[in-house]
Amino acid sequence: MVKITLPDGTKKEYKENITIGEIASNIGNRLGERALAGKAGGVLVDLNYPIKEDISLSVITEDTDEGLEILRHSTAHIMAQAVSRLFPGVKLGIGPTIENGFYYDFSLQHSLSEDDLRKIEEEMTKIIREDIRITRTELPRDMAIKKMEAAGQSFKTELIRDIEDETVSFYTQGDFTDLCRGPHIQRTAKAGIFKLLSVAGAYWRGKETNPMLQRIYGTAFFTQTELDKYLKFLEEAEKRDHRKIGRDLDLFSFHEEGGAGLTFWHPKGARIRNIIENFWREEHFKRGYEILYSPHIAKINLWKTSGHWNFYRESMYSPIEVDGQEYILKPMNCPFAVLMYKTKLHSYRDLPLRWGELGTVYRYERSGVLHGLLRVRGFTQDDAHIFCTPDQLEREILGVIDLAQFMLSSFGFHEYEIELSVRGKGEKEKYIGKDEVWEHAENALKIALEKKGLKYTRMEGEAKFYGPAIDIKVKDAIGRGWQGPTIQVDFNLPERFDVNYVGSDGFHHRVVMVHRTVLGAMERFVGCLIEHYAGDFPLWIAPVQVRILPITDAHIDYANKLQALLLTKNFRVECDASNAKINYKIREGTMGKIPYLLVVGDKEVEGGTVAVRSRKRGNEGTIAVEEFIRNIESEIREKR
Amino acid sequence: MVKITLPDGTKKEYKENITIGEIASNIGNRLGERALAGKAGGVLVDLNYPIKEDISLSVITEDTDEGLEILRHSTAHIMAQAVSRLFPGVKLGIGPTIENGFYYDFSLQHSLSEDDLRKIEEEMTKIIREDIRITRTELPRDMAIKKMEAAGQSFKTELIRDIEDETVSFYTQGDFTDLCRGPHIQRTAKAGIFKLLSVAGAYWRGKETNPMLQRIYGTAFFTQTELDKYLKFLEEAEKRDHRKIGRDLDLFSFHEEGGAGLTFWHPKGARIRNIIENFWREEHFKRGYEILYSPHIAKINLWKTSGHWNFYRESMYSPIEVDGQEYILKPMNCPFAVLMYKTKLHSYRDLPLRWGELGTVYRYERSGVLHGLLRVRGFTQDDAHIFCTPDQLEREILGVIDLAQFMLSSFGFHEYEIELSVRGKGEKEKYIGKDEVWEHAENALKIALEKKGLKYTRMEGEAKFYGPAIDIKVKDAIGRGWQGPTIQVDFNLPERFDVNYVGSDGFHHRVVMVHRTVLGAMERFVGCLIEHYAGDFPLWIAPVQVRILPITDAHIDYANKLQALLLTKNFRVECDASNAKINYKIREGTMGKIPYLLVVGDKEVEGGTVAVRSRKRGNEGTIAVEEFIRNIESEIREKR
Repeated sequence: MVKITLPDGTKKEYKENITIGEIASNIGNRLGERALAGKAGGVLVDLNYPIKEDISLSVITEDTDEGLEILRHSTAHIMAQAVSRLFPGVKLGIGPTIENGFYYDFSLQHSLSEDDLRKIEEEMTKIIREDIRITRTELPRDMAIKKMEAAGQSFKTELIRDIEDETVSFYTQGDFTDLCRGPHIQRTAKAGIFKLLSVAGAYWRGKETNPMLQRIYGTAFFTQTELDKYLKFLEEAEKRDHRKIGRDLDLFSFHEEGGAGLTFWHPKGARIRNIIENFWREEHFKRGYEILYSPHIAKINLWKTSGHWNFYRESMYSPIEVDGQEYILKPMNCPFAVLMYKTKLHSYRDLPLRWGELGTVYRYERSGVLHGLLRVRGFTQDDAHIFCTPDQLEREILGVIDLAQFMLSSFGFHEYEIELSVRGKGEKEKYIGKDEVWEHAENALKIALEKKGLKYTRMEGEAKFYGPAIDIKVKDAIGRGWQGPTIQVDFNLPERFDVNYVGSDGFHHRVVMVHRTVLGAMERFVGCLIEHYAGDFPLWIAPVQVRILPITDAHIDYANKLQALLLTKNFRVECDASNAKINYKIREGTMGKIPYLLVVGDKEVEGGTVAVRSRKRGNEGTIAVEEFIRNIESEIREKR
Repeated sequence: MVKITLPDGTKKEYKENITIGEIASNIGNRLGERALAGKAGGVLVDLNYPIKEDISLSVITEDTDEGLEILRHSTAHIMAQAVSRLFPGVKLGIGPTIENGFYYDFSLQHSLSEDDLRKIEEEMTKIIREDIRITRTELPRDMAIKKMEAAGQSFKTELIRDIEDETVSFYTQGDFTDLCRGPHIQRTAKAGIFKLLSVAGAYWRGKETNPMLQRIYGTAFFTQTELDKYLKFLEEAEKRDHRKIGRDLDLFSFHEEGGAGLTFWHPKGARIRNIIENFWREEHFKRGYEILYSPHIAKINLWKTSGHWNFYRESMYSPIEVDGQEYILKPMNCPFAVLMYKTKLHSYRDLPLRWGELGTVYRYERSGVLHGLLRVRGFTQDDAHIFCTPDQLEREILGVIDLAQFMLSSFGFHEYEIELSVRGKGEKEKYIGKDEVWEHAENALKIALEKKGLKYTRMEGEAKFYGPAIDIKVKDAIGRGWQGPTIQVDFNLPERFDVNYVGSDGFHHRVVMVHRTVLGAMERFVGCLIEHYAGDFPLWIAPVQVRILPITDAHIDYANKLQALLLTKNFRVECDASNAKINYKIREGTMGKIPYLLVVGDKEVEGGTVAVRSRKRGNEGTIAVEEFIRNIESEIREKR
């Protein structure tokens, strides 16, 4: 007999070798039906895993994240089986689950098309209908290697060679066997609601020097409703793709001649960025910040002193030689702020100093992970460094949170998730800085969050070695999470650069340094804004706010005067004086996502009025020019 | 007999071998007295140069630039003679005249001090009193080398080796002989009004790998009044030195750890820069410009296509390797604007496009020539590129000139000199682009200048190979010239990058590209502004506009409220809440060159007033807060 302990603490006894599936059915019919796998002693196992000893046990069902992941993992195997049937001789790479789905990498001569995806889906449906049993076997490592060598699966052989365990597990379903840790569903018919999404190239193990494989992305759910909802979300996300909107609205470009991941901001995109930067600077000045400008390169020694050269080298570019010394493109702005701080002796009376910088940094990223504006190699951080005394820390953190909330809500972000990263328990030696200094700082962050009445998750052990931090993730219009403001206390740089202030006691004390960004980087933030608004920017951000559409050439004169008037009021106005028909002009303006189109014809010229078409509210009728100006002035002022 | 032709065309006959000095005296006693040298057949020669053939002749007198240069050159020799007497064994480098004076480089063990300069001056005065005759001798090149070798003058030997002429001339005055082309004054007593200014290190021939010599700078004039005026000017310029003021007002710094020539903008300096940049952007937007942002690095091939890699390499930094390809820090913004232009097909109806960028470029400069903000290795150009049709060129140039005048006068620059650089006659093969295109462009620049009623100097042969240009030099508050706006037509990049527009005829045409900067670079312009205003910035630029000085702690509360009020109106305000005496606070505020100090005591608290001290106009009495606000608002608006 074995004794099992269920999650609610109840204990039950069964005869040895009973499977988890049997236990689930024994507990209740419904649990038995919905059971997918189990967790025995904290380890995920198959439903037919036999219990041989006293152990804690939970049953994994469909309505859990773990259940969904198992379903997706099994669907990936079914896909690999279908591909193996359709393309004999295919070599298998890896096939893990990812957020929202799964993928599998294949090496095959044939270049997979959309049509192929549909064929593979059909074959998968067949496999699911066949309701094949999925079984686990274990082999000693060397036998496993021989088995895969015999099957011609060289990537799998390579994977097994890297496994350190003595035994290796395989999962088999009919004519298909795959190296896998599991667990999996018991029969293929448990799967069924899935969709293959796309195919893309991917280097084996992500290395540019390895062979290029074909990666098929897919997803799976337990209900059709969930799948449909997700596909609709994907469709919506695709419509919002900032790369497409960026091209359509002529906001930015990347150039092979310039280099991957280097953004070229076109006039309209640069306008958006400049509006954000002006707003950012104004708001920072109002809140007692000052602004710095620092160079884009510095001697390598500066980065050795800062520690970046040791800890961050793979993200840094290769050195530039100047007068026999090595210089490096800056991956961070911090050391520059530190050098400026150190040009003077600072008293506690001078603190806090809040020094912001829209600093452009360059960090190496593999070309494979570059993605539009969201992942680039050069970006302008909305950086700031706060130098303060320990006593001032809480108030400064409060100030940053307040600023972050204000900035985010100005851009229409009202929901966010907050994480407070602190030291792990009993790992004090992993962190630099004294115990009481850490406790003080962690406490300051915690109290600041609580004073603001914000919910947060305390992430034990997630702090960087140099200090605790607050990370805020914002939710966009379709519920996606984006990395938002970060607030990082740093005990490291003040040590490395010997950064001090003179206290009220007349002695030198180590300054407390806080790094923070609110928007993150101009590139990523504008990319995020494009997707958040789907290119329909609010009036205060829109690169073109108003376009005037004269109906015929006879109305161009009035249109020009109107444009000149609006320009003197600093609105961003265009005039479409082409000889196209008015409906065509309206369509063009609408496609250009311009907030206001002003149609002017005989009636408007006579009355000194404009016929207003709001992009968001449609035709708003004919109103006096002054009224239109008043309306948009208040819309801009209120950042609606 | 020889026939000589004077500058006014009169011809005279003299017996052969008559000297220029004799001719001058023959023409008139006064001319004879004031004669310093002559120009025979266009060549500068000594006064005792014998005339052996019919030739055109002019007499160089004191009141000419050439006369002053001869005096200074001779004074440099007198200085070298004095140094040779005081420091036997000194090795001589070169000793040319420069703008406003002369220098001489010496190699000697002893490190020269200010005291030494005074001793050298005394010795020079002795030499001048000795009234030594200065004579010219000529030697064959190899004998000249032997002579200098015998004298242990290795630098002179090196110089002679580089001279291609068969004979080499020397000038001797008593115990001192120097290799020199001449001409010189006839006797040392002709000199006398001079001043040694400073001593500095200088590499032999400017090369860092060569030995370091000691360079003594000095100047000389014909009258004490002129010398005094110049020394006063120097004193004034020294007070305005932007490096000193930059330190005193905490505007910027340079750091050995960062690298030479890389500017760190401190909060107050960055404020000034940001105010200028905002003003710049606003004014450009008003005038139909749009703004770009481009990366700081690009693949080397882009610079090969643009031609910079060939023509400009010595100013470019060494490559950075990324994914096996070479990237370069950008020395120019132009190729980026070109790539952006080329992302679309442009019709003549889209033109002109006026694309500005505050683009930070990096250009290598020898460390010896770096000078504060005025000569740096990284700087932010206020760049713009105009893409237009040939027909639009004149109007665009007019627009740029108008913008330049507006911007310069906003910063208090009202005097300038303009140069129009055009092709040299008969050298058409030196320039790229068709003849009629050049003529059209040169004409457009000329007409634009004339339409604006501006005086300019036509500089034949001064155009770059790729197009004609307008260069504007501005005069600062003490009359010094600074490089100002430049407008450069470029026929090269449109060719190299194949940049076109579709004309009204439906065919592709080469676009006309204009490069222009108005302020030049933020670094240099702010450096220039500091010296122009001697740190006393007008209110709209001043990083701190107002400082409130509470007389005692009892007035701090009122001061804080006042500060908060002024901050909400976006003024830049500080409050000196220290416990210093009010006179000390006033002195500090005055030293900080803050435009307005507001003293607040009992009287002001009671009356809701402020006692205003204007930096420029002194004590302005006690006025209501609202009145003060109105006053400074209009002062800022009018950029007084």
